[in-house]
Amino acid sequence: MQWIKEQGYEFIEGGVCAAGGFAANGCNCGLNPDPGKNDLGLIFSAECCNAAAVYTTNKVKAAPIYVTKEHLEASGNCARAVIVNSKNANAGTPDGLVKAQKMCELAAGQLGISPKEVLVASTGVIGQELPVERIEAHIAELADGLSAENHEKAATAIMTTDTVKKEVAVSFELGGKVCRLGGMAKGSGMIHPNMATTLNFVTTDAVVPVQVLQQALDETVKVTYNCLSVDGDTSTNDMVLILANGMAGNEPLEAGGEAYQIFQKALYLVLVNLTRMLAADGEGATKLLECTCKGAPDWDTAITVAKSVIRSPLVKTAMFGADANCGRILCAVGYAQAEFETDRVSVVLASSKGEIEVCHDGMGIAFSEERAAEILAEDEIQICVDLNQGHASAKAWGCDLTYDYVKINADYRS
Amino acid sequence: MQWIKEQGYEFIEGGVCAAGGFAANGCNCGLNPDPGKNDLGLIFSAECCNAAAVYTTNKVKAAPIYVTKEHLEASGNCARAVIVNSKNANAGTPDGLVKAQKMCELAAGQLGISPKEVLVASTGVIGQELPVERIEAHIAELADGLSAENHEKAATAIMTTDTVKKEVAVSFELGGKVCRLGGMAKGSGMIHPNMATTLNFVTTDAVVPVQVLQQALDETVKVTYNCLSVDGDTSTNDMVLILANGMAGNEPLEAGGEAYQIFQKALYLVLVNLTRMLAADGEGATKLLECTCKGAPDWDTAITVAKSVIRSPLVKTAMFGADANCGRILCAVGYAQAEFETDRVSVVLASSKGEIEVCHDGMGIAFSEERAAEILAEDEIQICVDLNQGHASAKAWGCDLTYDYVKINADYRS
Repeated sequence: MQWIKEQGYEFIEGGVCAAGGFAANGCNCGLNPDPGKNDLGLIFSAECCNAAAVYTTNKVKAAPIYVTKEHLEASGNCARAVIVNSKNANAGTPDGLVKAQKMCELAAGQLGISPKEVLVASTGVIGQELPVERIEAHIAELADGLSAENHEKAATAIMTTDTVKKEVAVSFELGGKVCRLGGMAKGSGMIHPNMATTLNFVTTDAVVPVQVLQQALDETVKVTYNCLSVDGDTSTNDMVLILANGMAGNEPLEAGGEAYQIFQKALYLVLVNLTRMLAADGEGATKLLECTCKGAPDWDTAITVAKSVIRSPLVKTAMFGADANCGRILCAVGYAQAEFETDRVSVVLASSKGEIEVCHDGMGIAFSEERAAEILAEDEIQICVDLNQGHASAKAWGCDLTYDYVKINADYRS
Repeated sequence: MQWIKEQGYEFIEGGVCAAGGFAANGCNCGLNPDPGKNDLGLIFSAECCNAAAVYTTNKVKAAPIYVTKEHLEASGNCARAVIVNSKNANAGTPDGLVKAQKMCELAAGQLGISPKEVLVASTGVIGQELPVERIEAHIAELADGLSAENHEKAATAIMTTDTVKKEVAVSFELGGKVCRLGGMAKGSGMIHPNMATTLNFVTTDAVVPVQVLQQALDETVKVTYNCLSVDGDTSTNDMVLILANGMAGNEPLEAGGEAYQIFQKALYLVLVNLTRMLAADGEGATKLLECTCKGAPDWDTAITVAKSVIRSPLVKTAMFGADANCGRILCAVGYAQAEFETDRVSVVLASSKGEIEVCHDGMGIAFSEERAAEILAEDEIQICVDLNQGHASAKAWGCDLTYDYVKINADYRS
């Protein structure tokens, strides 16, 4: 995968522990029957953090969503730890709240902090009771192993059908102070914009007041995770959390200022690259698809069109087959729920092998099928839709739809 | 497939020619390289017909949509013939309107009627120029072969990736007069509600004024074709046409009266069974899925929830795997774009092998996996969602998502 980069930002190691003062760990507590695979993760900050979050818009919400919300409200958005498990969503069961609360208490007991300072997340099968006693049996081991080096253990603990762990971190300067911001994410299926998508945990040592942190997160999620679609299913458990412990010692950020722009760009770089990693690792995916809609009358139209193309199962299967089926792209542009003219639309397909126009002024045009197949054989494909009726643009990300998506999901629970 | 039946209505042979005074034919004109497969169809009525139609809501519309609309407007919704081709959508090309118009002129010339009395439809690949000269070369043969017996030839001419032809017809009585109403449909992929879906042609010999015909069609499409989703892609070419030639000699229908109810029920029986045939023959499908949402606060909520479940790729793949994954159903209920409480939702899975409750009061419950697998092994599955907060109910139809869907669509154009 190619990385989205920006001058002034250096990509660094460390994931969720790249920022000063954070430690993490992961272990297998027996939720995953394969003892070689982690299923329980913990993130901890030496200092109390300002926290912000966005959650799934699904009306059926997993228990940890409610508990995390409640803890943030009770603490005035301060937090020091996150406990998370995979293999069980702790959703759609009668005792979910009790068990999510119990997870916080277990972590708090080990860490010597208040349960209200612990946030909680789960991912996995919906509708099965969480055997929290397995977490209890391993909580001491988990807390004892906390260190900045163990970020990978936490990143692997949140994987479900993910084939690779997802970690991104950058360093940058705010008023002469070196700051770091890094994150980890999971998610492979049940991924569709609004809100958030999947589990995402981001930490930073920058000094950021709670409201500014929330604003930066909302604005950035809108153009990153919310522009990602793997299969059109919005999960019950989606959550994006950001913790800022202030250890970098910069001047507190104010919304809208220059320092805010610098911070937000760092957050964007981490979230957009995690988003692209999530798309590239979509269930069964062989190709990362990026749709850019430009020439739109306004930003929301651009987002809507880009998402519509990325979501189309027929575009996704055509890309799997390296088939330059411009008609399906035009069709998906046409049913996007926005107001615009379709007779000026052009479509260009591109990859590292070059680009080719397949549609012009709303019409399919003659092109070299051989050249198109060569471009589409790559594993990262750009679909560029120009509406030619304005100056707004937006991007959305997804993946192709393959045999393996069906295989993975036909019997996920067993 | 089980048929939806109703007392007082007899299922009869004849498809689009079941009603008195209609003839049809189909042939291969070379759009389909396999000479054994029809690609050009014609429907003709001895008497002038009242006509009503609903069209795709896609902003990118195929040329025949525009020409059919224009002809109905110019003629005051009178029509005598429909010409239709498969393998080429006549959409997204610069000369589409000219060629759609040409198809009408060719048919009109052979039939000795005005081009304005001819309606036109196309289905197939988008963005490739229609070689209308092939249609011209076969129009005489097509018209010469018109007969009531040749309904199957027309029904096969509109097939694309369909594996079976779809025809349904019923007879019923209106004020002592025997009336017949029958139709044919095509559609396998690029199927998603709003509006219409796929190509559907319905004929009747009942006497029905134009406005009443349009009202009956609108009301019936809302609960049949618009509740069908195969892949979430809304086509550029969708069209449902109904022609009523009045040869049955009944008293002209008035909206809302008893006779109207009888007629509308006939239309419903034809459209709902065609809808179920379309779902069962969805691209790559091995199972017909029917979701019933009941106990909803209102009808629109019931429709929205039923459609949301039917559309979910994760529910569709679980059904392919005969996996009673109640969490995914609950999840799809939860992200349905409607307002309701989720904590009273129950879910029952059923087939001809029996039924099993998998979710109660918004929670997954313990059930026999063995028994569930036995029920889900059937090829027609009922997903019954009870919101338990009202008295409205609605149904939606779809199919499972399989390896073959991917295979069919990865290289559709070649």
